[in-house]
Amino acid sequence: MNNNMVYDVAIIGGGPAALTAGIYAARKKLKTIILAKDIGGQSLLAEIIENYPGIEKISGKELIEKMRIQNEKYGVEIKEGEIVEKIIKQGENFLVNSIETKSIIIATGKNPSRLNIPGEKEFAGRGVSFCSTCDAPLFEGKTVAVIGSGNSGLCSARDLLKYASKVYVLDSAPKVMGDEWITEELKKSGRVEFFTGVEIKEIKGSKFVEGIVYDSKELAVDGVFINIGWTPAIEFLKGFVGLNKEGEIIIDSKTNETSVKGVFGAGDVTDVKYKQCVIAAAEGAKAALSAYNYLVKS
Amino acid sequence: MNNNMVYDVAIIGGGPAALTAGIYAARKKLKTIILAKDIGGQSLLAEIIENYPGIEKISGKELIEKMRIQNEKYGVEIKEGEIVEKIIKQGENFLVNSIETKSIIIATGKNPSRLNIPGEKEFAGRGVSFCSTCDAPLFEGKTVAVIGSGNSGLCSARDLLKYASKVYVLDSAPKVMGDEWITEELKKSGRVEFFTGVEIKEIKGSKFVEGIVYDSKELAVDGVFINIGWTPAIEFLKGFVGLNKEGEIIIDSKTNETSVKGVFGAGDVTDVKYKQCVIAAAEGAKAALSAYNYLVKS
Repeated sequence: MNNNMVYDVAIIGGGPAALTAGIYAARKKLKTIILAKDIGGQSLLAEIIENYPGIEKISGKELIEKMRIQNEKYGVEIKEGEIVEKIIKQGENFLVNSIETKSIIIATGKNPSRLNIPGEKEFAGRGVSFCSTCDAPLFEGKTVAVIGSGNSGLCSARDLLKYASKVYVLDSAPKVMGDEWITEELKKSGRVEFFTGVEIKEIKGSKFVEGIVYDSKELAVDGVFINIGWTPAIEFLKGFVGLNKEGEIIIDSKTNETSVKGVFGAGDVTDVKYKQCVIAAAEGAKAALSAYNYLVKS
Repeated sequence: MNNNMVYDVAIIGGGPAALTAGIYAARKKLKTIILAKDIGGQSLLAEIIENYPGIEKISGKELIEKMRIQNEKYGVEIKEGEIVEKIIKQGENFLVNSIETKSIIIATGKNPSRLNIPGEKEFAGRGVSFCSTCDAPLFEGKTVAVIGSGNSGLCSARDLLKYASKVYVLDSAPKVMGDEWITEELKKSGRVEFFTGVEIKEIKGSKFVEGIVYDSKELAVDGVFINIGWTPAIEFLKGFVGLNKEGEIIIDSKTNETSVKGVFGAGDVTDVKYKQCVIAAAEGAKAALSAYNYLVKS
């Protein structure tokens, strides 16, 4: 099946779905390449992962590193810093940038969604952040707001509590959206205040963030962490495979097939219902096994 | 949601699907009990697992133990040695043996069918395997026998050909039972030999497998892969949830819902296409998240 010029499978992405697809494809002796903007994806945002079965506690960075080592062990080529601009069908094969491949697994994950309010862009990196793991330490003794009360917002609040003296959690939803156990944990701290059912209007400041405006009120804050969801990373795919109205790749949930024969989807970039590390990993395994079945039959 | 007398979710089974469902359910603060004949299931057969993403090398037993510890950490009750005989609908709830619960996750797995010949049990994990995707890489340059010439046996033979130097396929059936295209592919390799219409009598060895006896002959082999089918562990479920013709629980692939509201399926006992440890784990996570959604809405 192998050929020096053509890969059996090109995996686009660098998170748990992509890296697990790599392990499974390589163990089936498929000539496999991973094309990733960066290795890690969303998992790098996780300071501590405690719900990955079989590993009691690990940082996202460490978990990813372990998966990378498994890929290297089985001879998967990893091309980092590779931004895929276009996929072209070429005869029976595909061209991904300059790489020719017989099949493709798309596992590009998701990008954080924006509020699109005044101040969000202006103060990015000057008090506005999308990553508590990266930036929480900058807010020692400060007051911060987290926008979004889903699990990712609540986890940000928990990260921030380690440094900030006070954390506000704001959401336009009428109630806190995340898990009860973490909500309770935050409330117990006595340093977290929730504002739900509010309209978030503006981020204010001069050199740095100084406040956030909601409804007709203002809170004095030094930082704003935005955790309102994610947008699938599929710009390069538009018109190539079928997407749902959220912009996620529609896959057959059993086989990970997309609307294009030979192209498979895996993980958060697809319409998989739950976005969790172990689920993304399993989706990568499924996509690789289906790519293998596709290759041996074609 | 909690009540001293009634569980939120009863998880039936003790493998990776059941244990991951436990972790996810308990982190959602659901009152959770695991009812298992034994903790571990099929994974205990795996001497070495090398394709579990994030863990380079681990025995099935160790992996299961780590998952059990995670369950204990979050307060999941585990009742081992519990054989579920019957599920009864009781008002809005269910009775599983004497346990009352608001929802159920069935994750009882599958049992590989056995030859029931001498040596099969003794050499399990020491040359005898039931999973080529898991164990083929251990047989680099070796000679192996596959028992069963149906498609699953032929797929095992194909997996093995990538590593083994020689593969025998044996079947008591008078001819090869799998598809022609794959049979031809195997024959073309020149490294696969078929023995049909034979009686498989014994697996021999000392520390590890050394040979297989059929009719009155013996083949020297380093491994024996047994692929004569699987039996879903669902005796107690007949007439309770919808099953496919293989006896697997039919689930919605996105939500893990079965035909009965409040009852979810996870892992190898369901009609999930690929039976792999990480996939079973992810299915357990999905089932628990769906059970949570069901409970908060009901």
